[in-house]
Amino acid sequence: MDERLQKQLAFALEIDKEKDVLRQTHTTSKKQENDAEHAWHMAIMVWLLREYANEPFDVGKAMLMSLLHDVVEIDAGDTYAYDTVAMQTQAQREEEAAERIFGILPDEQKKECIALFHEFEEGITPEAKFARAIDNVQPLILNDYNNGGDWRKHKVTKSKIRKRNERTKIGSQTLWEHVTALIQKNVEKGNIIDE
Amino acid sequence: MDERLQKQLAFALEIDKEKDVLRQTHTTSKKQENDAEHAWHMAIMVWLLREYANEPFDVGKAMLMSLLHDVVEIDAGDTYAYDTVAMQTQAQREEEAAERIFGILPDEQKKECIALFHEFEEGITPEAKFARAIDNVQPLILNDYNNGGDWRKHKVTKSKIRKRNERTKIGSQTLWEHVTALIQKNVEKGNIIDE
Repeated sequence: MDERLQKQLAFALEIDKEKDVLRQTHTTSKKQENDAEHAWHMAIMVWLLREYANEPFDVGKAMLMSLLHDVVEIDAGDTYAYDTVAMQTQAQREEEAAERIFGILPDEQKKECIALFHEFEEGITPEAKFARAIDNVQPLILNDYNNGGDWRKHKVTKSKIRKRNERTKIGSQTLWEHVTALIQKNVEKGNIIDE
Repeated sequence: MDERLQKQLAFALEIDKEKDVLRQTHTTSKKQENDAEHAWHMAIMVWLLREYANEPFDVGKAMLMSLLHDVVEIDAGDTYAYDTVAMQTQAQREEEAAERIFGILPDEQKKECIALFHEFEEGITPEAKFARAIDNVQPLILNDYNNGGDWRKHKVTKSKIRKRNERTKIGSQTLWEHVTALIQKNVEKGNIIDE
């Protein structure tokens, strides 16, 4: 087999491991969600809700960014958005993971993937802004559906969750307003702590 | 909340069920794969292997088609590619499912999704041809990695698997040649029955 195709298929097999990286979020059937499921859901929601983005953006690129953004967690693990200790070492761990995993690819595809990963993390381009908004909205609607089970378990506070969701506002004012109402509803239900 | 956004978020919650539709394929960690994981993997592989398509195609559209192509299985269930009995009723079951599930969406998005689903099933456009090739290649590389476990379990024959993979050739001559070699390797190992 051609060496180039061999590298590409080795990468396809390597990222299969993302199906075993579990998140703190639970699905509507109360199963612990994995990164591959989250990324699939996110990519569809990027397309589905594109009309609410603050700025015009390239939907295909934002979908691809969503599909690939958690590949690094195969090595670095999932860092819960409200785990402040793990978040301190997250960037370094994910950088090393990107180098190893995307390094399986032919060189120009490696560069393309690492660039997309960084673009997402930096959150500056319209694609990254909207993908990051959806990265927040997707677990929020699941958690709201599950009556805030994950928030209650982790004793998440309103200020923390609102701070995290500042990036939703950067990507989409409309979705941010919806998220704000949804957070308030869960505060009133006692699912989120109002300190 | 705006009625339109309400419908879109109801759809986003509905398709979450795809994470519970199990396939016959097993992942590299020997877990039974679900439809959402398969669709995520497929969408990335459409982008990753795009250079091997027989014809130029719109990568973003083929990715979206891949992400959505199994939504109907929430109602219709997964039909194993080598289950000839279930395949007789598959089209009708999937048509009803498309009507119900995509029917949750605002009307123009419902139409868009149903059109994409049909386009994939018909396999005539360049996007559908390549997405369908990847729909075959993705489980093949997993099954090959697992030493043909799923083929052995279902006593799959070489002629059946080659017939199924005719559509890989329609999407990509290069990937079809790779698949052919991979099938032959598994026949020699006794993982696929050569009648």
